[in-house]
Amino acid sequence: MTTSLSTDLWPDVQPDAARRLMLAGVESFARRGYHATTTRDIASGAGMSPAALYVHFPSKAALLFAISKSGHDQTLALVEGVVAGAGSPSARMRTLVQGFAAWHARRHTVARVVQYELGALPEQELEIVTALRRRIERHVEQLIADGVASGDFTVGNPRTAARAVLSLGVDVARWYSERNRQSPDALGDEYGELVLRMLGAST
Amino acid sequence: MTTSLSTDLWPDVQPDAARRLMLAGVESFARRGYHATTTRDIASGAGMSPAALYVHFPSKAALLFAISKSGHDQTLALVEGVVAGAGSPSARMRTLVQGFAAWHARRHTVARVVQYELGALPEQELEIVTALRRRIERHVEQLIADGVASGDFTVGNPRTAARAVLSLGVDVARWYSERNRQSPDALGDEYGELVLRMLGAST
Repeated sequence: MTTSLSTDLWPDVQPDAARRLMLAGVESFARRGYHATTTRDIASGAGMSPAALYVHFPSKAALLFAISKSGHDQTLALVEGVVAGAGSPSARMRTLVQGFAAWHARRHTVARVVQYELGALPEQELEIVTALRRRIERHVEQLIADGVASGDFTVGNPRTAARAVLSLGVDVARWYSERNRQSPDALGDEYGELVLRMLGAST
Repeated sequence: MTTSLSTDLWPDVQPDAARRLMLAGVESFARRGYHATTTRDIASGAGMSPAALYVHFPSKAALLFAISKSGHDQTLALVEGVVAGAGSPSARMRTLVQGFAAWHARRHTVARVVQYELGALPEQELEIVTALRRRIERHVEQLIADGVASGDFTVGNPRTAARAVLSLGVDVARWYSERNRQSPDALGDEYGELVLRMLGAST
């Protein structure tokens, strides 16, 4: 658990102690699950006292929310950046899938917490995260609908297709590990190709 | 939690008390995670004493293994039945995906435990389950390779394609719920179509 890793994961979070606690939280949640992790476990993983944890996060749930919100903000920014960019729907979809799948491979431990611990978020925090998820889904659905309109894609049901596109990327977090022979970027490239075919892209 | 549900989920498990404990285990693990669930929680969920639980399962890990093993046995049987059946690679792949995706939708709570709690299995039990998973993966990879050989599919990397096919189905367990508008079978049909396109099927 290094400072450079936590800086890489959460460049916008300050101070460094907060990032170290988020990383310790990710590692504990991924290993034992959210409910079986105590704030003492997390503080100890970050080399701090429980009291020092509460300076940065008022509760375990607040720490989970910080991790979840940041992960959703990052993937939404990735999706919005691509969708708003230049290029045909096919070209943008390829870039989107490459980035989305590679993100889930490269940050698979963080991504597992982001994708699989939604049920542990308190109600208000869950609403915020759910709104971010809906925006991601709508962007992908709209890009597919645009591609159908332009003749780039042939898809019967853009909503199901959008679900499948995101689902392929999300599930990478479950099965990907450092032992995998494929780099995150190489996997992203292959998934980009598979998704274009799935959408009937005429490339 | 009814007897008929547990009979439907695990028709081969006897007696009924063991099935009721498996169902209570699934519900507790899905709600709080494996590590935060006690054998007392599970026994109480099944309306039994902790002592009655130990008559059927020597430990919480043994109960998890029973749930996991049964889920993998069922999906392997589904895959083997389809792969060994008649029909072109395309026809068999469509049937396989329909059944696999529908299984994960219909049994999403069980499937979440089966797919996401592998890390909690003791070493020997994990080896047994991993061997079942490898057989499932190899069947799908072989079916894709057969389809490439016969000209049914055009796929660059059958291993990545097999991973993507199974990944789409597994991830259904994460996002599917009873609130979903699509029935498990309707979803399976759409996913069968998407996968055939992904494999470049000439249908």
